[in-house]
Amino acid sequence: MANLFFIPQYIISGENALQMSAEHLTSFGRKALIVTDDMMVKLGNVKKLTDILEDSNISYVVYSGINGEPTHSMIDEGVEIYKNQGCDFLIGIGGGSPIDSMKAIGAVSTNGGSICDYMGKKIEHTLPPTCAIPTTAGTGSEATKVSIITNTNTGVKMLLSDPKLMATLAIVDPIFTLTAPPAVTAATGVDALTHAIEAYTSKKAFSMSDIYALSAIQRIFGNIYEAYSNGSNIDARREMSIAALEAGIAFSNASVTIVHGMSRPIGALFHVPHGLSNAMLLNVCLDFLKQGAVERLCQLGQAIGVFRSGMTQEEGAEAFVVATKSLLRTLNIQTPEEFGIQKEEFFSQIPKMAEDALISGSPLNTRRTPSKDDIMELYKKLWEKSE
Amino acid sequence: MANLFFIPQYIISGENALQMSAEHLTSFGRKALIVTDDMMVKLGNVKKLTDILEDSNISYVVYSGINGEPTHSMIDEGVEIYKNQGCDFLIGIGGGSPIDSMKAIGAVSTNGGSICDYMGKKIEHTLPPTCAIPTTAGTGSEATKVSIITNTNTGVKMLLSDPKLMATLAIVDPIFTLTAPPAVTAATGVDALTHAIEAYTSKKAFSMSDIYALSAIQRIFGNIYEAYSNGSNIDARREMSIAALEAGIAFSNASVTIVHGMSRPIGALFHVPHGLSNAMLLNVCLDFLKQGAVERLCQLGQAIGVFRSGMTQEEGAEAFVVATKSLLRTLNIQTPEEFGIQKEEFFSQIPKMAEDALISGSPLNTRRTPSKDDIMELYKKLWEKSE
Ligand SMILES: NC(=O)c1ccc[n+]([C@@H]2O[C@H](COP(=O)([O-])OP(=O)(O)OC[C@H]3O[C@@H](n4cnc5c(N)ncnc54)[C@H](O)[C@@H]3O)[C@@H](O)[C@H]2O)c1
Ligand SMILES: NC(=O)c1ccc[n+]([C@@H]2O[C@H](COP(=O)([O-])OP(=O)(O)OC[C@H]3O[C@@H](n4cnc5c(N)ncnc54)[C@H](O)[C@@H]3O)[C@@H](O)[C@H]2O)c1
Ligand SMILES: [Fe+2]
Ligand SMILES: [Fe+2]
Repeated sequence: MANLFFIPQYIISGENALQMSAEHLTSFGRKALIVTDDMMVKLGNVKKLTDILEDSNISYVVYSGINGEPTHSMIDEGVEIYKNQGCDFLIGIGGGSPIDSMKAIGAVSTNGGSICDYMGKKIEHTLPPTCAIPTTAGTGSEATKVSIITNTNTGVKMLLSDPKLMATLAIVDPIFTLTAPPAVTAATGVDALTHAIEAYTSKKAFSMSDIYALSAIQRIFGNIYEAYSNGSNIDARREMSIAALEAGIAFSNASVTIVHGMSRPIGALFHVPHGLSNAMLLNVCLDFLKQGAVERLCQLGQAIGVFRSGMTQEEGAEAFVVATKSLLRTLNIQTPEEFGIQKEEFFSQIPKMAEDALISGSPLNTRRTPSKDDIMELYKKLWEKSE
Repeated sequence: MANLFFIPQYIISGENALQMSAEHLTSFGRKALIVTDDMMVKLGNVKKLTDILEDSNISYVVYSGINGEPTHSMIDEGVEIYKNQGCDFLIGIGGGSPIDSMKAIGAVSTNGGSICDYMGKKIEHTLPPTCAIPTTAGTGSEATKVSIITNTNTGVKMLLSDPKLMATLAIVDPIFTLTAPPAVTAATGVDALTHAIEAYTSKKAFSMSDIYALSAIQRIFGNIYEAYSNGSNIDARREMSIAALEAGIAFSNASVTIVHGMSRPIGALFHVPHGLSNAMLLNVCLDFLKQGAVERLCQLGQAIGVFRSGMTQEEGAEAFVVATKSLLRTLNIQTPEEFGIQKEEFFSQIPKMAEDALISGSPLNTRRTPSKDDIMELYKKLWEKSE
């Protein structure tokens, strides 16, 4: 069996990556739409970027309306500005939300229509050049063919997946992540961990995605707690930024599975941030998927050093699951209840959530295929285990 | 410090990768120049490719003149055909020689002049779409920004290195390598091993090149002897194909160092195949570079499992060097003398070879900077150690 592998055309990573990218940006066009959120403006990150653009004689407009995970109306507004202002390329700077939004705005700008029509469709025309600058170490959106936009009319977090959504240039500078508060660091870091675990245990995993998934998992186990508890440690931040990038590359090529499938509906209906809903689910989903992925989970146990000689594969897999659960505990992940979700409301939405999870297609990549009942059961367990 | 990383836009790997690539090729153009050698025509590999093209209604011309490592006149001839026949994209199928030639023909077709003018120059205009299909597991040229062409007027193997020389699409199907005879399998496999070791110990190594270099070295130690001694083992061939690809990605982004720097002059003057001249040199060069790369070589020792607990870093590095030398012995690499080089002729060329090695720039990436005298000394040792 053959497999397709692709990543952004150029990836510039490491401290001062932004400074090194001026030459590339110059080749992209004359006027950039900068897609971002108010926090990025406030932190001065947008200023760092616009300084570089000004030095390179590139015009720009700033659209800082992505405050919260992206909705279809945010995209509409961005497309409006892109067109009215005569932009010819895009830069997304921020967490996954501004980067995903940038991709969606780019897609609509050359393909027309409304982003709500794009779910499950192939994108026909190439996007304008796109540059992604992550400020969280999490989604890996800077290196994925994915954009996730909520259609607030239907309450569905739409998974858009198309090779044309891959950014042209990814600028991964850990300096931008230094200001992320602990809760964001934890949730986005677990998002990256989930990408890597799901990619490695996906039915679509192959050699080229595996090396990224393994590397990401090793870096995350080695550095997430330090980045969370001591946010100014640039070494830990650098490792987490690279890990998030690697995990993004891994899952963009090998797919995510059940955790992400189940996570998006929670996000759409209860406005739980993406990383947090993954973190909540990882626990119960690992127990479920383990049965179909003993060998692979055992390899992960070896990679992080919890497999001891003499262990069976089963024990090695369990050692990895246990290590992951205890890592999650150190990060003080909120439960659904702590986040403020009402129990009755949550339970009443379980059938719709299970349906939406299955429709996205992600759960089918799990090495143990879940039925709708299995998924409903897991949503219940998620609540009960955390009570 | 920030680092740039890039690979082909699309990589399709695994058995039947060629079949999976029709859609991509269709988007490349109407008429392909197929750059190859007579052996590929004879083996039926070109036919496999043209069958796919015919099914996709893509026209083509076959230029099978790359018999031997590429010279500037082979490139001239290819450019002539490309233009006269109205081609609009290129496919290279074969070992590194046809693939490098395809890149050079592509560069001259859009940038004009003679390939001899390109050494050390930046390539201005983008090439037509290029597709690389390797049939050796060695050079990694399918995923490098490099093309190596001999200027037979000056006796220099020119190292052309430019982001624009990266292929658009790499098709890595291990099936094509099944027919490679043992000597070719050994020499090209050691070429890949050399790429990985040099990339990992290069001054320009960074996280994204490292994971490829490490993975390649593990695969090569695990499979090269089997691929060499039992060429029909598709599992070993697959691992070697992926390893060569990974090693190409690693060195394209982190550079090669002293071995390749010294290898090209031997190739240019004595017509020693590229993989063989690397294999001859690896022994003496490892002893030289070790002094500056103890920590990194020790990590390689860990990666291949020859580092034992209690060893010092120095001992771990030496364990890796010893393991590499003993691997080389099992592959029956020819000595310069066995290859038919005359001792006096070799020694008289040492000053020119050392000069050309340094001019290429590669030796300066070694973690122990070699002087011209060091390099001359190593050429002497190469001869003496193998007497
Ligand atoms: N495209 C993909 O491949 C992919 C993958 C996973 C998730 N996602 C999507 O990404 C979105 C989530 O992205 P996210 O988790 O990065 O969060 P986010 O972009 O929504 O940001 C979360 C919060 O952190 C703040 N923040 C971000 N960086 C900061 C910094 N350096 N310092 C201080 N504050 C900072 C933001 O302003 C925001 O308030 C979701 O919509 C999710 O569905 C996309
Ligand atoms: N561009 C790069 O990044 C890069 C890197 C390293 C080397 N190189 C260059 O690549 C060239 C060497 O390439 P190579 O080592 O692959 O050798 P090659 O292309 O010269 O092929 C060597 C011989 O093996 C035969 N052959 C190839 N595949 C075969 C198969 N599957 N079955 C049977 N016979 C087969 C060829 O016909 C030829 O006779 C050199 O010019 C070298 O400088 C380029
Ligand atoms: Fe995610
Ligand atoms: Fe080589």
